[in-house]
Amino acid sequence: MRILLDGMGGDYAPKEIVKGAVQAAELIDEEIVIIGQEDAIRKELKKNKYKGEQISVVNADEEITMHDSPVKAIREKKNSSLVVGLTMLKEGEGDLFVSAGNTGALVVGARLILGRIRGIDRPALASIYPDMETMQPCLLVDAGASAESKAQNLLEYGLMGSIFIEKVWDRENPRVGLVNLGAEETKGTSVTKDAYQRLAASPLNFVGNVEARDIPKGACDVIVCDGFVGNVVLKLTEGVSLTIFKLVKNALMETLKSKIGGLFIKSQLMKLKNDFDYEEYGGAPVLGVNAPVMKMHGSSTATAVKNAIIRGIPYARENVVEIIRDEMLELSVIEEE
Amino acid sequence: MRILLDGMGGDYAPKEIVKGAVQAAELIDEEIVIIGQEDAIRKELKKNKYKGEQISVVNADEEITMHDSPVKAIREKKNSSLVVGLTMLKEGEGDLFVSAGNTGALVVGARLILGRIRGIDRPALASIYPDMETMQPCLLVDAGASAESKAQNLLEYGLMGSIFIEKVWDRENPRVGLVNLGAEETKGTSVTKDAYQRLAASPLNFVGNVEARDIPKGACDVIVCDGFVGNVVLKLTEGVSLTIFKLVKNALMETLKSKIGGLFIKSQLMKLKNDFDYEEYGGAPVLGVNAPVMKMHGSSTATAVKNAIIRGIPYARENVVEIIRDEMLELSVIEEE
Repeated sequence: MRILLDGMGGDYAPKEIVKGAVQAAELIDEEIVIIGQEDAIRKELKKNKYKGEQISVVNADEEITMHDSPVKAIREKKNSSLVVGLTMLKEGEGDLFVSAGNTGALVVGARLILGRIRGIDRPALASIYPDMETMQPCLLVDAGASAESKAQNLLEYGLMGSIFIEKVWDRENPRVGLVNLGAEETKGTSVTKDAYQRLAASPLNFVGNVEARDIPKGACDVIVCDGFVGNVVLKLTEGVSLTIFKLVKNALMETLKSKIGGLFIKSQLMKLKNDFDYEEYGGAPVLGVNAPVMKMHGSSTATAVKNAIIRGIPYARENVVEIIRDEMLELSVIEEE
Repeated sequence: MRILLDGMGGDYAPKEIVKGAVQAAELIDEEIVIIGQEDAIRKELKKNKYKGEQISVVNADEEITMHDSPVKAIREKKNSSLVVGLTMLKEGEGDLFVSAGNTGALVVGARLILGRIRGIDRPALASIYPDMETMQPCLLVDAGASAESKAQNLLEYGLMGSIFIEKVWDRENPRVGLVNLGAEETKGTSVTKDAYQRLAASPLNFVGNVEARDIPKGACDVIVCDGFVGNVVLKLTEGVSLTIFKLVKNALMETLKSKIGGLFIKSQLMKLKNDFDYEEYGGAPVLGVNAPVMKMHGSSTATAVKNAIIRGIPYARENVVEIIRDEMLELSVIEEE
């Protein structure tokens, strides 16, 4: 297998990307092709004292920044690492593309260059959401590829997420839940009510509506919602968590007594904070396009890059794209019956 | 002024409701009319050794439970405390209605019995959202009165919330923010993009889009969103907070060293947890109907009831309903110009 790695995307590229690739190469047998400004990447490989043949470099000179408009960037920057990498993936010169670049450009590029899986109306960006009680990862779909969704799109998100978790994370019969106002099937908008019926009628292990209160407790393995709500869930979880950690820290500093206590428990709190580190899980998939693409967080460091590469491998190896295509075909047959 | 109090709504009615009324009566000069099952309420008044004339009781025999369908309950249970109280408010037999009852029924009842303020398309339910850094309350509108909103509704929410905060909480020039995917005005759904333009063109102190990440940090005083997103924001904040507090507690119990530390800081953590107690702020308003209605949390205890009564008074005294009506009139004049 050949893994295509975007050498230029993310806040710490190419330094941390290359370092992560070198770390991954020590642990896996797969070839890694780093795509980006060749001189800069080779310099980093040298810094990491890498002399093997498992990692190669493909030059791509142009740069897509976080401020570029996604559609324009994909159309105009043909020699960017993102466009070159996705094109190589499409043409079979690699089996998996991993990138920490501009999220919008990655999603648009994947859709335009790789194309949608037949039967999928709207590709989605997934995101890892930790079950905060067990620290098991769950998958939230859609994390923001589309701001608005139709009921059919929500069904697709549930299906794609379920297949990904089953095949890539090796978790049997994943529980699929729909983010909604209440548990009853009559709750919500016209779209969520319709989506409820479609999910309930599907072969998925649909556990029904999930209230936002229960998301952090791991109410389901696949958290289905439109991209607007998905964005709110992810960013609010981050905001509330960080604010509370800050408050706990401040509370500990408030009195001499609690300061002494704080010293005792500092290591426990640090451990807890690390458990929340989404990057441990590596990246999250772009789903619904014709080849496996993994998105890493923009601020990914070497460890996150290493994890995304390693954890991305089964996305390609387990034929997730083909299974999604087959399942969509089967679903449409069921609907026609 | 005469305050109408729903004696039967909420998990701890009538016990905690009556107790809260007695506590409030000690602090304010206003008359309080408790509406509900007269015998039960009088028994509670006796238990609280209340012998004054400031609190009176109006009998209302029927009960609306948390499981009743809102519209059906309002239509069929004419002698419920909720319907009797709202009808008294409409007929001028009181100036403010405070209830911990079935939220849906309260919102529907307020709309059907009191009617919408002229110019307001969609009344809203507000909710207190604490700025977690300063512990100042902010107001989230809509907290779930409508699952879907048009751009004009979002403008109305911003306007009503802004007037409420200015008049009732005495906070000048409140910052109004729109929950959205990103800071740029081009972000979001067709509805949020349109709402952005309407809010920006209004006389409100519109601070632009607010990302969910910044909501807990008090990015604005009025948090504007549709009822679906509002529900997700409120319930997710609750879910994440409670889960983290539990994790911190568990982390403290993990080792002997941290257990000792835990003892030292227990009081600080308890204090922090209390700061998150939404009930301290009392209730939140139903906005956009022709008379002042305050909604308390279903699990309100006496303190919350006392606070809701006292903090609800300026909603009636400051003529918030009339100001909203005038402002809507002015807005429509501006639009026509």
